[in-house]
Order: sequence, then structure tokens, then C-alpha cells
Amino acid sequence: MTNPLDVVAIGNALVDVLAHSDDDFLAGRGIEKGSMSLINAEQADELYGVMGPGVECSGGSAANTVAGLASLGGKAGFIGKVAGDQLGKIFKHDITSLGVEFNSEPTHDTNPTGRCLVFVTPDAQRTMQTFLGSAGEVSPADVNESLIRRAQVTYFEGYLFDAPPAKQAYVKAAEIAHAANKEVSLTLSDKFCVDRHRAEFLDLVHGHIDVLFANENEIVALYESGNFDAAVHAVRGQCDVAVLTRSEKGALIVTPEHTIEVPAHPVAKVEDTTGAGDLFAAGFLYGYTHGRPLAECGKIAAICAAEIISHVGARPEANLAELVAKHV
Amino acid sequence: MTNPLDVVAIGNALVDVLAHSDDDFLAGRGIEKGSMSLINAEQADELYGVMGPGVECSGGSAANTVAGLASLGGKAGFIGKVAGDQLGKIFKHDITSLGVEFNSEPTHDTNPTGRCLVFVTPDAQRTMQTFLGSAGEVSPADVNESLIRRAQVTYFEGYLFDAPPAKQAYVKAAEIAHAANKEVSLTLSDKFCVDRHRAEFLDLVHGHIDVLFANENEIVALYESGNFDAAVHAVRGQCDVAVLTRSEKGALIVTPEHTIEVPAHPVAKVEDTTGAGDLFAAGFLYGYTHGRPLAECGKIAAICAAEIISHVGARPEANLAELVAKHV
Repeated sequence: MTNPLDVVAIGNALVDVLAHSDDDFLAGRGIEKGSMSLINAEQADELYGVMGPGVECSGGSAANTVAGLASLGGKAGFIGKVAGDQLGKIFKHDITSLGVEFNSEPTHDTNPTGRCLVFVTPDAQRTMQTFLGSAGEVSPADVNESLIRRAQVTYFEGYLFDAPPAKQAYVKAAEIAHAANKEVSLTLSDKFCVDRHRAEFLDLVHGHIDVLFANENEIVALYESGNFDAAVHAVRGQCDVAVLTRSEKGALIVTPEHTIEVPAHPVAKVEDTTGAGDLFAAGFLYGYTHGRPLAECGKIAAICAAEIISHVGARPEANLAELVAKHV
Repeated sequence: MTNPLDVVAIGNALVDVLAHSDDDFLAGRGIEKGSMSLINAEQADELYGVMGPGVECSGGSAANTVAGLASLGGKAGFIGKVAGDQLGKIFKHDITSLGVEFNSEPTHDTNPTGRCLVFVTPDAQRTMQTFLGSAGEVSPADVNESLIRRAQVTYFEGYLFDAPPAKQAYVKAAEIAHAANKEVSLTLSDKFCVDRHRAEFLDLVHGHIDVLFANENEIVALYESGNFDAAVHAVRGQCDVAVLTRSEKGALIVTPEHTIEVPAHPVAKVEDTTGAGDLFAAGFLYGYTHGRPLAECGKIAAICAAEIISHVGARPEANLAELVAKHV
């Protein structure tokens, strides 16, 4: 195959707007800290109006993952929808300047490029209010077959489940990938997102997914299992590998026969947890697509997650390939 | 007077696009490190195309200064031109969310909001390539007379000298301010800008300016004096106060009778010098408009400059009022 890729991701093409905030601001507006909620254009304008000064940078969960993969030296592609506006140009510039292939046509309607208003509280947690805009317009027509066939792993973000045509796009992409003997991966993204779409997530996980990423809350929500151990039991064997992250407690890699514990990589000071899961997935998938043993995939993942939470913003500031070379 | 202001600034309404870069990239394109050059729309598109992934945040030298003044608890206004596009909305949002009055009408032509491509090299220096866009359209018609009359100090950035109608706007604003018994301040901004407009800068400084800000290179360029001591001699008495910054060597406050040395405030690690001069001016003008002795104005200025160079970006991340309260 010409031009093989390690990973192609399908996800929300979003620009993040990061601002510092305090707990009272969120509580006063009934926004649950640590959650991601969808808002419409009007709500986004209203909320932006009362938000503090922001910093804009390209975001989107799966897009952050391929950005991380590129920083590790991997080869990646991205499928997602921007509009033909200034934020859309920023998104396209940032991801392509990292060497990620991104050829999805911009939309031509009046729906602007999506944005995620990120409130970073003093405890370094991030609370996200997302106006999907054009990002929610991913449909099966956007699934570039040759891109999928070139990639060892096709990766989906759960957030896109909030946009119905995207679910069909995932199934189409999974079928193309499997027909080409490639693998398919999914991150559950958010426990509230899992609550909104549990049945469809279960169908996808049990029928199409080889490598599943979830944090503790998400996997417990998926199986409504009440506690983490029961969720580990429930997911084992449902896909080849389940990678379950637990913040400072590290992660668990669960295969049908084995359970591998991955300790968290030390961080001097946690500044902003935005992107921790995205970069954990980047590191893991880099190792996975480069034939590393699972424990080593986990170690690379933990290093990448540690880098991202040591500064504000969800795209790496350090060269991850150099960082990993020091430790692995 | 109702609603008095400490400072109203007239300057370039710009959005900064910050990216890390290396010396070779700049050298290869013939861009002098540490300089600010103007580029046109086409050059901006071309340069952005080869620039690494960026972070966008509101910038503009004088706008950074009033943002700093607001963070110190001061009351400020801003006059500058954005377009009716997404970057224009970002600029307006960021400055007004800090409490700065900003009511300049957006332009209605096709010229987009200006942007400054900032290349941050590993030595933490910043090299700027600015596409002025709508920012360059400031004209005498934009000088809001009541805003100027309400402010103790009207502050100009030298960069705007590159846009001819802005020079007339400065003279008009200076005349309004002086007629109202208020003061006028200018920062020279950039030695190349001084080289481009020396005669007009000298006219303005010697005829209209009460408080002048310049760094070592700029004041030497203004008087073509060859060395700093000769420039100090040349500027003394030309305005009430000349504030001459010298990076890690601190600053000199020069009045007709006195010279006050201001030591630099210690910084653990210099990350990015973007905005050092802007925030030095913010701190000085805050002290100056609050009746503090000149030495104390200098001390506040040095604390603000130290905060801004300790992180990437030219707007304060810490609450400057709290920071200053700890030290002054």
C-alpha cells in the first residue's frame, strides 16, 4: 500500500476557547463541573458574552489525538467538518501544519465552524460547553474510503454521537476498515454522552470496536455497573483491548486474558486537565501501531497525558517523540 | 467629571497568532529576529501557510497595555479598528470582558481584522510579522472626544505610525487631551518603526508628549545617538518623564532634574518576551495615574513585565493587582 497511515480519526473539528473561571460562575449557571454539554448558537453567544478573555486554539478530542500522534512521529489523517470562515481556516492550518492529512471539504451553509467554550477552574478541571456548528455535519459521505483503507487504526470520538449522521459514518468507516483487515478504535469521550446514547454505544463497542478507550466514569456509565471492578468484568472480552484511564491512579489495559496496570507519569503541577484522555489515546495508539507491547503502549500514553496536563491547552507544547525517547 | 478613566489608548486592534519557531526558519526567510515588520494580506497568507500550529489571542501593543491596566484594577478605554469578522469579535470580546471600554465601530469594508504572526524562538524572543488589516484604518474620525477628556492619560503606540491617518488622529487626540488639562503618552514601539518615521516621531515627542516610553534600541534610534547615555542626555527635558527600559538591566526614569534607576523584577524562567514593554507601560501608568512616586511606578511596572515574560502570550495570566499588592 502506498502512503500507509498509522491512524485516521473521525471527530469534531472544533476550535477551543479557553478561559479561566471559578466554581461559583459554573454553579450560578447550573453547569456541572467537569462535564461537556452541547449548546446552540444563541447559547454560545450569550455564554461567550459573559466569559472572561479567552485564548483560541484548535481542539476537538480526536483531532487532539492525531495532533499528539503526529508529535510522536506517527502518520495520521483526520476527517471532520469546518466551515469556510476564519475559525475553520485556523483549524485546518493547525492540523495540517502538524503533518496530519485533512482534506474534508468545508461546509457551504451558514453554520459557522464549531467551538468549545472551555472553563478552566482553579483545580485545573475543565468544563466544556460546545457549540458543534459545522462539526456536527459529518455524514457517511465524508468517510474517505482510501484514507480509511490506508490506516492501521480508524479512531472515533464518542462526542460525535450527538450528531446522528455521524453514527452512520462510524458504522460505514468501521466496515471499510474491517474489510481491509484494519482495526477500529473508539473513545467513549464523556459519561453524559454515554448516558445519552448508551444502547448505540453498546452496539458499536460489541460489534465493531477492537480498541476501546474510556475513563472510569465512562466505562461505569456504559455498563451501568455501579463500580469500576464490575465494569472491568463487563468489558473484558467485548473488544480486543480496553484501555481504562483513572487519572492519577494510572490506567488499566484489559484484554480477554490479561490485565495490565499502567502507573500515571509524574507531573510537577497539573495546570489544566483538558486533553488528558486525548493524549493518552495518542500515545497508546502510537505504540500500538508501531508493534510495541501493550505495557509499553501504556507507558508512552502516560507520558503524553502528563505533558498535556502540565500546561493550559490540549495540544502538545513539547516534542512528544523526544520526551518519550527519554523515558521508554 | 462622570466616569473618569485612568488611561485611554489608541492603537492597533490585532489578534496575535503565536507559534514556536527556530532561528533557521527566520534566517531562511530573511526575517530579522526581534523585529516587527509589516506584511500585506498575500504575504500573511503565505507566511501563515508555512507557520507551525498557532495559538490565537487578542494582542496589539497598546491594547495589551490597557488589558494590563485593567488587571491592576485601573479604568481604561481603547480606540482601534476591527472588522466585522470572527477575529474582530474575539478582539472586542477579550478587551471588553476585562472591563475596558471599547466602542470603536467595526469597519464595513472587506479588509479583515488585523493579525500579528508571532514567532517565538527558543531564546524566548519574539519576531513579529504584522498584517494590519482593519487596524490600520484608525483616523481622526475615530478619536472619541469624550473618552479622551475623561482619561488622565491618553496613550499612543508608535506602531500605528505606519498607518498615515493615525498620525493625524494622534495629533487631534493630543490636542483634545491637553485642552482638557490631561496628559499624553507615547511608546516608540520598535526601532525599525522609529527609523521609518523619525522626523514625525521627533515632532510628536517634542511637541505633544508628557510621558514617553522607549527601550534602549528605540531611544538610541530616535536620536541617532549611537549609545544609550547620549540618548538619555538627548531626551532629558523633551518631555516630563521618559521611561527607558533595558530588559534584564531594568529601566531608567528620566525627568528634567532626576534620573531614577528601576531594577528588573526577578523571573524564574523567561518563556516569551512578547508584551514585556506593553506591560511595563501598564504598570507605570497605573502607578502614575494613582499618584504614586515615580520610583514606585517603576517598581509596579517591573512586576508587571516580569509576569508577562514568565509565560507565552502578551496578556496577563495572573491577577496583577494581587501580584503588585504582595511586593509594593
